Amino acid sequence: MSSDVSKPTSPTSPSSKATERSSVVRVGVLGGGQLGRMLALAGPPLGLRCVCVDPDVAPPCAWVAEHVQRSVDDPDLPSLLDGRVDLLTYEVEHLPIEALRRLERRFVLRPSVRAVEIAGDRLLEKTFLRDLGLRTAPFAAIDAPDEARAAVEQTGAPAILKTRRWGYDGKGQRRITHVDEAHDAAVSLAVPAIAEGFVRFSRELSIVAARGLGGDVRCYPLVENVHREGILRLTRAPASDVSSSLQARAEALVTRILEAFDYVGVIAAELFEVGDELFVNELAPRVHNSGHWTIEGAHTSQFEQHLRAIAGLPLGSPAARGASVMVNLIGELVDRDAVLAIEGAHLHLYDKAPRPGRKLGHITFVADEVSVLRARIAQLPEPLRSASLADFDATR
Amino acid sequence: MSSDVSKPTSPTSPSSKATERSSVVRVGVLGGGQLGRMLALAGPPLGLRCVCVDPDVAPPCAWVAEHVQRSVDDPDLPSLLDGRVDLLTYEVEHLPIEALRRLERRFVLRPSVRAVEIAGDRLLEKTFLRDLGLRTAPFAAIDAPDEARAAVEQTGAPAILKTRRWGYDGKGQRRITHVDEAHDAAVSLAVPAIAEGFVRFSRELSIVAARGLGGDVRCYPLVENVHREGILRLTRAPASDVSSSLQARAEALVTRILEAFDYVGVIAAELFEVGDELFVNELAPRVHNSGHWTIEGAHTSQFEQHLRAIAGLPLGSPAARGASVMVNLIGELVDRDAVLAIEGAHLHLYDKAPRPGRKLGHITFVADEVSVLRARIAQLPEPLRSASLADFDATR
Repeated sequence: MSSDVSKPTSPTSPSSKATERSSVVRVGVLGGGQLGRMLALAGPPLGLRCVCVDPDVAPPCAWVAEHVQRSVDDPDLPSLLDGRVDLLTYEVEHLPIEALRRLERRFVLRPSVRAVEIAGDRLLEKTFLRDLGLRTAPFAAIDAPDEARAAVEQTGAPAILKTRRWGYDGKGQRRITHVDEAHDAAVSLAVPAIAEGFVRFSRELSIVAARGLGGDVRCYPLVENVHREGILRLTRAPASDVSSSLQARAEALVTRILEAFDYVGVIAAELFEVGDELFVNELAPRVHNSGHWTIEGAHTSQFEQHLRAIAGLPLGSPAARGASVMVNLIGELVDRDAVLAIEGAHLHLYDKAPRPGRKLGHITFVADEVSVLRARIAQLPEPLRSASLADFDATR
Repeated sequence: MSSDVSKPTSPTSPSSKATERSSVVRVGVLGGGQLGRMLALAGPPLGLRCVCVDPDVAPPCAWVAEHVQRSVDDPDLPSLLDGRVDLLTYEVEHLPIEALRRLERRFVLRPSVRAVEIAGDRLLEKTFLRDLGLRTAPFAAIDAPDEARAAVEQTGAPAILKTRRWGYDGKGQRRITHVDEAHDAAVSLAVPAIAEGFVRFSRELSIVAARGLGGDVRCYPLVENVHREGILRLTRAPASDVSSSLQARAEALVTRILEAFDYVGVIAAELFEVGDELFVNELAPRVHNSGHWTIEGAHTSQFEQHLRAIAGLPLGSPAARGASVMVNLIGELVDRDAVLAIEGAHLHLYDKAPRPGRKLGHITFVADEVSVLRARIAQLPEPLRSASLADFDATR
């Protein structure tokens, strides 16, 4: 790199010029994937500048943010970040807890390590939710393969065995139909794990919410999600056919979670709708794929909302602007021109190389009428068109 | 800068990894102010990456884009950019034309140098418009101070003397009430200049439009602008009380301009409404302050639209989403918390140090009803509140 080409001015050395400007908040983001990238794009208009920590040489955040190419558990990280960031946050929840505790001793971390620790461990998470009086699928701990049979006898079969930590997008899971399969499934997974019974839900919903530094909570509308192969494919926002009572119960539920954590930032709760009841499937202590529609479909995007919350700024309006549908681009890219030619298509590419099952981008459509959303999806190029129409038609 | 902290990966050396990704277009932007910054924020979701050229050490673009710290007329610039950008565009129109011609020999420049040359020179611009059959204020060239009297006799007094080039935000202008003041005003200005007669307009409007590589034109709705001291203060979008015939005439007018230039990109035409007629005040061959409302208030922002156009991508929908008002932050910053506490406030700071008359940021409100917009402005902190309410009430 020629010295003639200067990279973004470093936030590490506040100049007198910087102090004349509006008070800039430098936000360190642990993780530099697409969520970090979208946070980094949301910050500058508010005077917030992101610095992403990611061991990859060219993570998605690298176009738009300062990039510290380190692992979160790199022993030099605290001193590297010292004086360079005003606070730290996360864009992933699977993080080494001891490293976070080291960082917490030197930096303001929001949300707290406790929330990340609990949400990143399926046993702690489900126990936490049950202790709050919230409904979850039946579950039991498996600390060694020979505990698997007893665990599945407790939850009932069919069941899913899941690793306690590090699972995402359907990874680290084994589905079994009979208790006799429990032991082998546990052997093939890394223990510690849990067994989870099935919940007969009518649909998958989620709610994204934020809690500010002063304790104020703002909730986005409930959305409906369609997963295939354990990966989110499509989100409809707001979910159709949501009574004000259902929305109120979802908000009460997520508020209880936020308050129990004394949480600061955006959280997502994945829910199962079972008759009149809401079961909590899992929590994400961060911005969430089922909230990407908020960039165009809500008055405040979840990325701006998270930054507002952790920086101690007032929260923004989470109200929806019309009806939205978000379609994920999984595993393979799509013809950019064909997508952009669709009226009102909002394309978001993450600058990631294609790989099966990998999230490479998403497309959001916003309209006044839900019928328009389906018509827009029908203009997508194949094979995304057929798959997304089927996903859309699977929603209520 | 420690070598442990890696800056955004350079777009200068396309790696094999990059080629596996979606086709990234590297856009060089001449100028790195707030317009360059907002272009750089709009590009990444589409797979477009901006590199800004600006002689300042820390221009507004530097947070979010690669920054080449050079003047546009730096003789080394072409070789510095070689292999680093796929095409060039502008965020300012006052540029040294000879330097642009040098760049044009080595790079794709969009829009063309001719459009920039004409729009950057008040005499060439007004002559171009008149030759297209469009209405402008009466004008006459002043190549030396002793031509000033004859020029003002031609345009009539009162009049404004303006330098032909380099003027912006009311700079480089002298207002005179009588022809006897013409000579002294011309002496105090740099010649070459022009004299411009007054147009008795009922309101100031503007239209932002884009022309794609294939010649397709998309026009945003007409907006109404309020200037004070030559600086845009407030934009209402869409302008109220615009008949479909008025919108159609504005679109025909700007389309004629776009086609005459064989233009590619976004252009703005500032207009005077005079009875049933539209006079063209001036052109900006770039994204424009009166189009900032499009970020939240239209289906496609002017920044995304410009990038789509110059990259040869399909243009997006310019339709408005509800009613918007944009308020500029001029000269002094505003209490960030007080603004963000207003429901639906969209704050955009440019990371510029306060200075009288300087554009430091803007605030956009979007609502379904115009009455809500006024109520939101009324929540702004003073003195912005009173000034902006008066500006809003001055619109139709």
